[in-house]
Amino acid sequence: MIIYSKDKHEKINIERSEIMNYSVITITREFGSGGRTIAKKLAEDLGFKYYDYEIIQKVAKESGFAESFVEEYGEESQNTGFFAYLTNTWGTSLSDQLYLAERRAILEIAEQGNCVIVGRCADYILEDRKDTLNVFVYADMEFKKDRIVRLYGEREDKTIEKRIEEKDKRRKAHYKFYTDRNWNRAANYHISLDSGKLGIDKCVELIESIVK
Amino acid sequence: MIIYSKDKHEKINIERSEIMNYSVITITREFGSGGRTIAKKLAEDLGFKYYDYEIIQKVAKESGFAESFVEEYGEESQNTGFFAYLTNTWGTSLSDQLYLAERRAILEIAEQGNCVIVGRCADYILEDRKDTLNVFVYADMEFKKDRIVRLYGEREDKTIEKRIEEKDKRRKAHYKFYTDRNWNRAANYHISLDSGKLGIDKCVELIESIVK
Repeated sequence: MIIYSKDKHEKINIERSEIMNYSVITITREFGSGGRTIAKKLAEDLGFKYYDYEIIQKVAKESGFAESFVEEYGEESQNTGFFAYLTNTWGTSLSDQLYLAERRAILEIAEQGNCVIVGRCADYILEDRKDTLNVFVYADMEFKKDRIVRLYGEREDKTIEKRIEEKDKRRKAHYKFYTDRNWNRAANYHISLDSGKLGIDKCVELIESIVK
Repeated sequence: MIIYSKDKHEKINIERSEIMNYSVITITREFGSGGRTIAKKLAEDLGFKYYDYEIIQKVAKESGFAESFVEEYGEESQNTGFFAYLTNTWGTSLSDQLYLAERRAILEIAEQGNCVIVGRCADYILEDRKDTLNVFVYADMEFKKDRIVRLYGEREDKTIEKRIEEKDKRRKAHYKFYTDRNWNRAANYHISLDSGKLGIDKCVELIESIVK
């Protein structure tokens, strides 16, 4: 809602958006960009619950799938090839069942509020909620390679770049399949941040200044 | 540059990016999203020079084209159809000549520093400058329609939406033609902001908190 002043030409007051109380933050991120780190810091600073692997656990518990199975197939698309065609008797693929289970979990989590949710098309699933802030985090390849080598102790070699590309390719495909949108399109989100350029701490600060 | 601490597992200090002194801000924006308003406020608050129509004037002066011509063809692509094929004896279309003239103007303006530049592929032209912050501003259709009706005094009817789409379509085509990128791709910019959701003032505040 935009506040109007009596004089249409009084633009100053017009530019304020409705005061929002954000109860849910979703973080969609490129692998290695620090999106997860940002999410954890936000949860800590704001006293919000953090949902990442916890979603997997919730889904596994409620669906009967093994946690490792949910983790492997839940977000990174295996929709090309054999897996795509494994359907149950109702014609729903395993991937679809997982997606629906994750979607249910995410809707419940958001309803409880005060949470930060990482990935899993949560921005799309929660797009009708006015109390949800959707964030996209990305960075240039050098920053991501450097981060992954340092934080995950991987060897620095040519395969890192390929691994990053491969992981993001799967996320993009998964996202595209279930949302019909391009993952890296700015307008999917409310704010998109280059963590390599701005720095992780700055990204946290910017998001907090919106949410608080 | 990322500051390392002696202990690789000490992650807190690692996440700070280099302290940047931003001297140039580029604002790429959807029509009606308030990008121009944001740019003006930034220029005013930061004491920066504001470049929008001023680029057109500069280009017109230096190129000999009439200002109205530069304004009409400089940013909104006329590259489909007849116009695309008008070339001079060296094979450069009028559109290309204008783009090159604007590019030169933008490079000079950035070199002088302390400026806010609106549109015209400035983010792409200046992408190698470390002192430049590239911002993308967008909003949902309702917000943009509402804004255009209020601020530009246009009649509210079905043609507004079409006009917004048409204008953005031209900008997208112009941008794609000269940068080979999709205009609304988050990673083209350092920060992308939904001005409808966050509000114009909040967008100004977020950008200033990066730049100051």
